[in-house]
Amino acid sequence: MDQVERLEAIGEIRRMKARYFRGIDEKDRDLLREVFADDVELDYRGSTTDPVTGINAAADATSSVLRGGEECAKLVVASLQGIVSVHHCSEPEIEIHDASNASGIWPMVDRLRFPPAAPFSEMIGYGHYRETYIREGGKWRIRTLRLTRLRIDLTPA
Amino acid sequence: MDQVERLEAIGEIRRMKARYFRGIDEKDRDLLREVFADDVELDYRGSTTDPVTGINAAADATSSVLRGGEECAKLVVASLQGIVSVHHCSEPEIEIHDASNASGIWPMVDRLRFPPAAPFSEMIGYGHYRETYIREGGKWRIRTLRLTRLRIDLTPA
Amino acid sequence: MDQVERLEAIGEIRRMKARYFRGIDEKDRDLLREVFADDVELDYRGSTTDPVTGINAAADATSSVLRGGEECAKLVVASLQGIVSVHHCSEPEIEIHDASNASGIWPMVDRLRFPPAAPFSEMIGYGHYRETYIREGGKWRIRTLRLTRLRIDLTPA
Repeated sequence: MDQVERLEAIGEIRRMKARYFRGIDEKDRDLLREVFADDVELDYRGSTTDPVTGINAAADATSSVLRGGEECAKLVVASLQGIVSVHHCSEPEIEIHDASNASGIWPMVDRLRFPPAAPFSEMIGYGHYRETYIREGGKWRIRTLRLTRLRIDLTPA
Repeated sequence: MDQVERLEAIGEIRRMKARYFRGIDEKDRDLLREVFADDVELDYRGSTTDPVTGINAAADATSSVLRGGEECAKLVVASLQGIVSVHHCSEPEIEIHDASNASGIWPMVDRLRFPPAAPFSEMIGYGHYRETYIREGGKWRIRTLRLTRLRIDLTPA
Repeated sequence: MDQVERLEAIGEIRRMKARYFRGIDEKDRDLLREVFADDVELDYRGSTTDPVTGINAAADATSSVLRGGEECAKLVVASLQGIVSVHHCSEPEIEIHDASNASGIWPMVDRLRFPPAAPFSEMIGYGHYRETYIREGGKWRIRTLRLTRLRIDLTPA
C-alpha cells in the first residue's frame, strides 16, 4: 500500500467506527450489522465493573463475549431496550497492517440512562476499545473488539 | 475529485468544524462568521428538550431557526452572554459529494453553566449535528446545521 | 511539502497526541517519554483554577511549568499517583508550518478521581491544549504545551 491508500484506509475505518457509535445510540440494527465482520467477536467482559473499586452494575448480555455479525447486531440493540445511551470517543490510534488488516485503540465514554424500574438510574463508563479490523467485500469492518475500563460510575435509582 | 483532494476536503471540513466549536466556547464572533456560509441556516429547534422525558429548558434564541452568516455569528454569541459553555464532539461521518458540496454528522455534547439568576444552574445536552457544507471563496463552510438530541440533563438552580 | 506529506504529518501528530492521552491515563512513563521532545516545556500554570469563579484545587506539581522529556514523563506520572484519570479530546485544529514544525489546539476534558484522603473527591476540567510540535528523529513530538481552561468543577470529599 502506498501513503495515500493508507490515509484512505484510516479515514474509512474512522467513518466506520463513527457509524458503530451512531448505530448503538440510535439503536439501528442494520447500521450495526454493516460495521461488523461476519465472524465478529465482541468482548465486553468486565465492562460493567470499576477496575479500582470492584463495584459492578448488574450483569447483562453486554458483559460477555458475543459472536457473529447478525447475532451481535441483534443482541447489542436488544440489550439497550428502554435505555438512553450516549457513546462518545476521543482521538484513536489506528495502525494499518496490510490491505485488509488493521488495528486500533479508541478512548471512549458511554452513558446509559436506565428506565425507572432499574436498580441504577445511570451508569457512566470510561475506557478503551481495543480492536482489529478486516476488509471484506470492499469495506473495513470490526473483526474483534475488547472493551477495557479505567472507571465506572453508578448512580443508584 | 481524486482521492487526495477528497482527503484534503475532509481534513479542511474537520478543521473548520473545530473552529466552530472554539468560536462558540470562546465567544469569538469573527471566528464564527468565518465558518458560516453567507446564507447559512442553523436549526436549533427542539434542542433544549429531552426527547424521552419531554422536559424543556426555557426557550431562548438558540431554540429556533437562525439565518445568514452575519446574523448567526451575532446571535449565537449573544445567546451565550453570561454562560460558560463547553461544546465537544466525537468522531464524525463526513461525505464529500463534489468539489463544493459535502455533508456530515457530528455526535456532540454541550454543557452550559448558567449565571446565578437563571432558573437552571446547568444544562447538558447530547445529540448530533446533521450538516451540509459548501465551498465558497476557496473555503469550506457550514451551509445548513440541524441539531438533534438523544438526551438533555437539567440542573435546577 | 506536498499535499500528501501534509496529510501524513497531520495524521502522525494526531496519533502521537492519542498516545499522550493514553500514556497519562494508563500512567505509562515510557509512552509519555516517546511523545515529548527532548527539550519539551509543559505549562500547566492556572490549570487547576476556574477562570470565572476563581476557585482553585490544591496546587500540585502539575500546576507549574515542567521541562525536559525525561523529567516531564517522570513528573506527570508521579503527579497522578493514586488518582484515576480520564483525559479526552474533541476535534483539533492542526497547522503544519514546514517539514519539522507544526502547531495545534485541542479541546479537552480531564476527570481526576482522587483517593479517599484527598480534600476533593473529584476534579473535572474543560479547556484547550495549545501546542507546538517538532519532528525529531523522524517522529513528531510535543515541543511546547500550554493548558488553558474554560471551566473547572470540584467535588469536595
